Amino acid sequence: MTKNVEVLALCKHRPIAVIGAGLVGAGWAVVFARAGLTVKMYDTNIETTHTAMRLIKEQLSSLSDHGLIDEDPGTVAARITPVPTLNEAIAGAIYAQESVLERVEVKRGLIRDLDACAPQDMVVGSSTSGIPASEFSLGLPISPRVLTVHPVNPPYLIPVVELVPSTQTSIESIEFATSLMNALGQTVVHVRKEVEGFVLNRLQAVLLREAWALVQEGVVSCEDVDKTVRDGLGWRWSFMGPFETIDLNAPQGVADYAERLGPLYQRIAQSRQHDSPWDAGLIENVASQLRQHLPLSELEERRAWRDQRLMEIASARRTKQQ
Amino acid sequence: MTKNVEVLALCKHRPIAVIGAGLVGAGWAVVFARAGLTVKMYDTNIETTHTAMRLIKEQLSSLSDHGLIDEDPGTVAARITPVPTLNEAIAGAIYAQESVLERVEVKRGLIRDLDACAPQDMVVGSSTSGIPASEFSLGLPISPRVLTVHPVNPPYLIPVVELVPSTQTSIESIEFATSLMNALGQTVVHVRKEVEGFVLNRLQAVLLREAWALVQEGVVSCEDVDKTVRDGLGWRWSFMGPFETIDLNAPQGVADYAERLGPLYQRIAQSRQHDSPWDAGLIENVASQLRQHLPLSELEERRAWRDQRLMEIASARRTKQQ
Repeated sequence: MTKNVEVLALCKHRPIAVIGAGLVGAGWAVVFARAGLTVKMYDTNIETTHTAMRLIKEQLSSLSDHGLIDEDPGTVAARITPVPTLNEAIAGAIYAQESVLERVEVKRGLIRDLDACAPQDMVVGSSTSGIPASEFSLGLPISPRVLTVHPVNPPYLIPVVELVPSTQTSIESIEFATSLMNALGQTVVHVRKEVEGFVLNRLQAVLLREAWALVQEGVVSCEDVDKTVRDGLGWRWSFMGPFETIDLNAPQGVADYAERLGPLYQRIAQSRQHDSPWDAGLIENVASQLRQHLPLSELEERRAWRDQRLMEIASARRTKQQ
Repeated sequence: MTKNVEVLALCKHRPIAVIGAGLVGAGWAVVFARAGLTVKMYDTNIETTHTAMRLIKEQLSSLSDHGLIDEDPGTVAARITPVPTLNEAIAGAIYAQESVLERVEVKRGLIRDLDACAPQDMVVGSSTSGIPASEFSLGLPISPRVLTVHPVNPPYLIPVVELVPSTQTSIESIEFATSLMNALGQTVVHVRKEVEGFVLNRLQAVLLREAWALVQEGVVSCEDVDKTVRDGLGWRWSFMGPFETIDLNAPQGVADYAERLGPLYQRIAQSRQHDSPWDAGLIENVASQLRQHLPLSELEERRAWRDQRLMEIASARRTKQQ
């Protein structure tokens, strides 16, 4: 914990660069600024940074309404400065979070630019969800200081971040990013190999594949899959992980559980290969089921509702921790 | 909704039989009694019903403390009568919930007994999680009135129940059980085919298989898997299902999402067969990781903590709905 505090103190003397000011970049700017850090925000399109500033002010105002920041939203927003060039963003920066377009040549170009002009000790976290950092960050002097720091959207509400080293990331960079993220109040998950989808999206993917397959086979409707999770499985998973959950579900803990239920789970796995594509007919089926309850025109409203619920959860958790 | 109210009114004139008074049966007794229904509780071991009554009184008292029942716990408990014979349990009963031992010959024997002496219109819901009702309920006059009504433990806190017809269950019986469960405040999920693990356990199973595999490959620790769900994925799943979640995660909804991310999910599925057993070494690895944070001796305490958290969620939801 001392280490986290030290790193945060260090970061207060030097700016944080937020590179790429879309939804993800804007979310990161909030995370850094609410912790008291100075943020320089850059995007190849200057207009995007202005849009981001408007969004950030709205988000900070919502956070304030839910008791999720203690300072005035204006005070926090004032720590974020849109800048017109990459050089201005990284001048003196101790850490850069890049959230540019999810295309390997774009990421590679950016890392090359950073290599040319970033401070010699600046660490770079990439928000990439789909491209391992090893595909765009190797073979340069900066390489040991680049790693994946993958957030869930929005990072100022949902704490988990996946830290994934490339094959050339140094231990020091991982340690720095870990301390920084912990100090910011994020929950760090260490992913030790660059597997596709990292951990969070892999776990989501297998559950989704099974859900789609069950709908395809006519076993269950989309609405009933949603009910199964929302009013069943998801309750425990909102405060305990899957291992913690099964550890409590057999008298002698997880090993006991594995012995009792492992064979059932293996049979379920064997019954399904999961590797067929979601074809057009299935997508049409799922979409039409969902559109019955929620017209496309109401998606935006529904997103706002979701964000409200997430804020309530964050707020309840914050109260508990204080 | 009118139908649910009608069914509940009908049930108030005739008792509900709870057969098998272990943890699951006792939980069901609470669900019926708190809705104002008269419950006759039977177990082949009379001592088990007395233990169940003590447990039920504790549970009702907890529910009352969390504002989850409006009546006095004693008033609710008084609706539940342990009886020494199966005949007394089902005399005049409109519905029986069986939660006897999860062994096919035990279930089959019970259904045969019920066939011989239950009221001609009594519907039987089985709490089976692993044995499809078609394996123990076919070929008898009572068969059209037997179906799976699979709860999550404890059913008085977690609302979801899976309704699964056998190959001989009548539509009327499904409709009756649906109305009854809805009237009791449970969330009904219709599982249309008797697939192994039904829906809830299948969804849990695939996520667990992936989690175990990632630990086996050294990608991530058990603790970090738990964090990924508890501080990431699980937040949304506590109030939205997986389809609802992805529907909001692409500008044009679920079809748009499937087009963007379907290929990634397919690659993840293709990268894994999931059908190898959890071997002794892996179980030992997982158990030793978990035991570092939570000694076996503290499991019971931790279960009590879990139940407190579930009550808080149930209580928050109840307040919202009122």
